[in-house]
Amino acid sequence: MADKKITQSAALTAIDSLNKGLGFLERTFELGDIAQLNWNLLREDLSLPSAVLYEEKLRHNLNWMQQFITAYGVRLAPHGKTTMTPKLFQMQLQAGAWGITLATAHQTLVAYQHGVRRVLMANQLIGKENMAILSRLLEDSSFEFYCLVDSAAQVDLLGSFYAERGQRLSVLLELGVAGGRTGVRNEEQLQSTLNALSRWSGAIALSGIEIYEGVLEEEASIRDFLQHAVAVTRRLAAENRFQCAPILLTGAGSAWYDVVAEVFSAAKFGDAVEIVLRPGCYLTHDIGVYREAQAKIQRRNPIAQRMGSGLLPALQVWAYVQSVPETEKAIIAMGKRDAAFDAGLPTPALHFRPGDASPKMAPAHWALTKMMDQHAYMQIAAKDDLRVGDMIGFDISHPCLTFDKWRSLAVLNAEYNVVDLVKTYF
Amino acid sequence: MADKKITQSAALTAIDSLNKGLGFLERTFELGDIAQLNWNLLREDLSLPSAVLYEEKLRHNLNWMQQFITAYGVRLAPHGKTTMTPKLFQMQLQAGAWGITLATAHQTLVAYQHGVRRVLMANQLIGKENMAILSRLLEDSSFEFYCLVDSAAQVDLLGSFYAERGQRLSVLLELGVAGGRTGVRNEEQLQSTLNALSRWSGAIALSGIEIYEGVLEEEASIRDFLQHAVAVTRRLAAENRFQCAPILLTGAGSAWYDVVAEVFSAAKFGDAVEIVLRPGCYLTHDIGVYREAQAKIQRRNPIAQRMGSGLLPALQVWAYVQSVPETEKAIIAMGKRDAAFDAGLPTPALHFRPGDASPKMAPAHWALTKMMDQHAYMQIAAKDDLRVGDMIGFDISHPCLTFDKWRSLAVLNAEYNVVDLVKTYF
Repeated sequence: MADKKITQSAALTAIDSLNKGLGFLERTFELGDIAQLNWNLLREDLSLPSAVLYEEKLRHNLNWMQQFITAYGVRLAPHGKTTMTPKLFQMQLQAGAWGITLATAHQTLVAYQHGVRRVLMANQLIGKENMAILSRLLEDSSFEFYCLVDSAAQVDLLGSFYAERGQRLSVLLELGVAGGRTGVRNEEQLQSTLNALSRWSGAIALSGIEIYEGVLEEEASIRDFLQHAVAVTRRLAAENRFQCAPILLTGAGSAWYDVVAEVFSAAKFGDAVEIVLRPGCYLTHDIGVYREAQAKIQRRNPIAQRMGSGLLPALQVWAYVQSVPETEKAIIAMGKRDAAFDAGLPTPALHFRPGDASPKMAPAHWALTKMMDQHAYMQIAAKDDLRVGDMIGFDISHPCLTFDKWRSLAVLNAEYNVVDLVKTYF
Repeated sequence: MADKKITQSAALTAIDSLNKGLGFLERTFELGDIAQLNWNLLREDLSLPSAVLYEEKLRHNLNWMQQFITAYGVRLAPHGKTTMTPKLFQMQLQAGAWGITLATAHQTLVAYQHGVRRVLMANQLIGKENMAILSRLLEDSSFEFYCLVDSAAQVDLLGSFYAERGQRLSVLLELGVAGGRTGVRNEEQLQSTLNALSRWSGAIALSGIEIYEGVLEEEASIRDFLQHAVAVTRRLAAENRFQCAPILLTGAGSAWYDVVAEVFSAAKFGDAVEIVLRPGCYLTHDIGVYREAQAKIQRRNPIAQRMGSGLLPALQVWAYVQSVPETEKAIIAMGKRDAAFDAGLPTPALHFRPGDASPKMAPAHWALTKMMDQHAYMQIAAKDDLRVGDMIGFDISHPCLTFDKWRSLAVLNAEYNVVDLVKTYF
């Protein structure tokens, strides 16, 4: 893989003006040189709409979650599918993350090419070329990789592929719930999957247990599900089903990671089991679904309470007012192409008039009422001081589907200077 | 601009394995060399999920629309925001399109860098860096560009910017409707915008009239709106308000282009007015909102009826069945990251089991019931012949928000061979 990495290294750090949301680039630039251009959002150096990350808030969230997870004595493998931004993966690893969680073979390849060497693919690996991608990465013995299995049919596909190549793939058995997503539902599915794993034990190594509790909505049923995962882990360990030590036990999206940390750490497995949690949205947070989820965590979790501060929204999309055609309606030059809209529309947070000293808080009655591909309708009140050419900074709900609208995002300091650029790989 | 184009030309045609949905690339490839790799979808050479274009259907749609528009004696400037795929822009221009319609300064830059030299930006140009992007492109006298104005405030911003640079920007006056999006609503707004245009006549050249009828839903009100646009065009022409000849008159999204063609051509402007229509979704079409809109066009429009065939769905997303955890539920390895979900979920169209000779039609009772970021739930019936590892080809609704999930799309021939790759620039 070394040669391939070298041939691609220039592309990995290069940026050109064909990415939207940037300032003027006379030529292709290295990401690391961007700060030298002295772009400033408020001086209108960026072509809006533009998605931006706030450096200080990002660092606050990064450290907050690492501290929280560490307080439980468990490991953090942040879900990288949220941002698909390798530079943020590196920040997370440097802050103490155990590895990066991802959802697909392609995402794993992107992470590998950017230096990540431990990936938990919290998904079934399926399909010839996807298995081939992993086969090539596994040629590097420094690369540690786990993916999920939840059926004999899938284990047979993996077993046959990797046995033929003389390779061994580490997998986690996924437990699911009726009405949920993937994962074995019952003893029969569990047994047939275990039997398939036994058949392919040379090529497929059972290395732990995985759940995703986020398919459930009630705390009580989530706690039951977590206890079930603990019990299955104990039972399969007693049956010597696992082919690695320590055994992995992993769960947790961005809404219930506190409960998962509590239940899994209370199982007191000691060194025999490595507990790995996988929240992803904490890094940028939001003002929608994840603010709501985090508020519940702050209320119910003693460690979160002791930490005082919570998470901060670190991602905004800035856009211009392009028209105020009616007294109570402004049209914003931002649309479904620029921000998530599936879990609440973006919320006007800051209002800036070019030439002013700094942005003001947007009035609470401003709200988006509709988004089209490239436009949004914003409700205002008659006689609000809003003009064509004004800039609005929007908070967002659902970072995952906002990140995937952007190939690069500017990182801003407190003075709205662009201190860095990060590239995404969706 | 020539130097900049040269420095970027390599990047424009290069492709590497960090784009999802591709096959194995040992090194960076030129797009034009992809066919040599002999990838075939049914041999599982692509890393699914993968968005694919069907070459024959694409060519059918391309020619259908060009013929339809030509039959009315008007011009086609397909909306390029749908695909943001410069290679498709070139196909459209070669088939006879007058120019390409776009929505933002960034999109215009992308088109320019790929050789497009006539752009109708069917949107207000707003913001310092966006105006600067156009200022740089306008240094090339072979580049013809129009954008919209709908307020005195906006004209003043443009006028001041371009007057300072000694440049002249061609604009179209946008007419709007109460409750709609952008565009002047009434005589007062029209007059104040015209007055601003008079103030800046050295820097801003009024070149025509623009409407977007798609904000209305009823044919009768659309016809009224179109007649209004015709009347304003006549009136401003009589007042010698336009600073170019011929005057442009433009409208039409993908749902009402037949009515726009009919009403505008019936105005019998002759050579004095160039009528330009802007549908964008016709090129790939879909099986959702645009199939429904097109069915109405086939029913009401005599030219569409005479042409016999209509438009064909030319874009699919293929994905694997990763789990069948319940007798009536399959989990598909495709999610909101891979296909539009805002105008109906993707529809299972083809079912293929690796090793079989060819795909079958998917049973009509298969349907997606939910999409998450990276997964979809598919309703099946107990005892359906569906297995983990099977491939499903999904038709989609809303091509715009499917294209923007992909950085490259494979172009397939009738044997599912990858005969080309196209890159998108969102």
